[in-house]
Amino acid sequence: MAELYIIKIGGNIIDDEEQLSSFLIDFAVIDADKILVHGGGKLATAMADKLNIPQQLIEGRRITDAETLKIITMVYAGYINKSIVAKLQGNNCNAIGLCGADANLVQAHKRIHHSIDYGFVGDVDSVNTPFLELLLKNNMVPVIAPLSSDRKGQLLNTNADSIAQELAKGLCNLYDVNLVYCFEKNGVLKDVDNDHSVIRTINPELYHQLKMEGAIFAGMIPKLNNSFDALNAGIKKVIIGNAAYLHKLISGDAGTTITN
Amino acid sequence: MAELYIIKIGGNIIDDEEQLSSFLIDFAVIDADKILVHGGGKLATAMADKLNIPQQLIEGRRITDAETLKIITMVYAGYINKSIVAKLQGNNCNAIGLCGADANLVQAHKRIHHSIDYGFVGDVDSVNTPFLELLLKNNMVPVIAPLSSDRKGQLLNTNADSIAQELAKGLCNLYDVNLVYCFEKNGVLKDVDNDHSVIRTINPELYHQLKMEGAIFAGMIPKLNNSFDALNAGIKKVIIGNAAYLHKLISGDAGTTITN
Repeated sequence: MAELYIIKIGGNIIDDEEQLSSFLIDFAVIDADKILVHGGGKLATAMADKLNIPQQLIEGRRITDAETLKIITMVYAGYINKSIVAKLQGNNCNAIGLCGADANLVQAHKRIHHSIDYGFVGDVDSVNTPFLELLLKNNMVPVIAPLSSDRKGQLLNTNADSIAQELAKGLCNLYDVNLVYCFEKNGVLKDVDNDHSVIRTINPELYHQLKMEGAIFAGMIPKLNNSFDALNAGIKKVIIGNAAYLHKLISGDAGTTITN
Repeated sequence: MAELYIIKIGGNIIDDEEQLSSFLIDFAVIDADKILVHGGGKLATAMADKLNIPQQLIEGRRITDAETLKIITMVYAGYINKSIVAKLQGNNCNAIGLCGADANLVQAHKRIHHSIDYGFVGDVDSVNTPFLELLLKNNMVPVIAPLSSDRKGQLLNTNADSIAQELAKGLCNLYDVNLVYCFEKNGVLKDVDNDHSVIRTINPELYHQLKMEGAIFAGMIPKLNNSFDALNAGIKKVIIGNAAYLHKLISGDAGTTITN
């Protein structure tokens, strides 16, 4: 099977124009099938502030009300997605920007929770893999914004990590899928304050041990749980590391590689 | 050759949620290959006002500066495009939302003018017709926002009528193309204040005569000039009329049909 890289960028990289441009140059030259999934960064929050749309937090969780969804759609699927696509095209990479509603790429349902109404937040049900395969086979590079839809006409704000993972699971029967989570840290760290304390490989036994020791930063635990789910579903490799070293992440010379 | 409908909506239809929903129900059931091109409506201007971004006008022309382009990208390629796509998917129409940067769909250059710097405004050079053909042959319905790119990474604000026309010209060797401009009036009117004064068919001779008589509303003249250009380039038919009567426009029972 052909290699496929599904690369997720988020957080600080998107907010930093220089870092993003540099990342996109590296991404463009990856010589294999590839998909980019991006998060939203802080621009949506900044936009909501400017427009005086109060951000609701319930039990510490951000709620996606109708006005917030509108901003997210504008910023994530509009500004960020199309700016990335235009830059990739400028780097001779045949990008096509999509959100989950396009061609029913990511179908989801509105999150149901016993105590919190998250608003227009979606949990993924399925991914349109034949559509992605069609694009990849025709030398296109999907660039995917973190929105899904419920097929009844409703857009839903959806976690970019989850979308990347669901795409990886959906495509692992057709490709050797490498799922790469890029962020601003060098990988999974033993000491959250020391960016040189990268754990180079994690398998289930080590993960269990590190969790027991409390040696993993709480924010990393959902990413790692998702990674093992993805590996169990048949994807080849999960890599977590710094967006600044994309090629080293892919070659195994930087970041944390997670295996079963 | 198969029939293809390229339908452009703009202006007031996009700003009116009820009219837009009703239009999208009609659009979804058109039993032929189809492409929707949408304009922007007033939402981008409203957003610029809310964000205190002054709209520059030079010699009566709106200038697309960097901040305005950002808003246009958010509103046109993000909010409007994806809301339409989600609604069409809810109507069982397999829509895919794109702007001109996606897969190099609409390539353009920054407008050069001897006296006015329009800013980030693009004039179309070419259209990626093999890409559109691929989507259509795979039962997708492209929904296109009025932005192009220069292939060097720059998005450009581009007139939706021109995009519709260039798509029509690009696809007329592959399809019998019907180009339908939908707006809030019933068609080309003899008397701009009388919505029942629709001129049902216009050919070049009648157009020349009507222009000489000053019997055509100035705002219609670019649309009509474009229509004859498109007909000369090989498209089958241009129809101009009210978005509320889409099926009648297509069947020839309403609106103005322009022929060579």
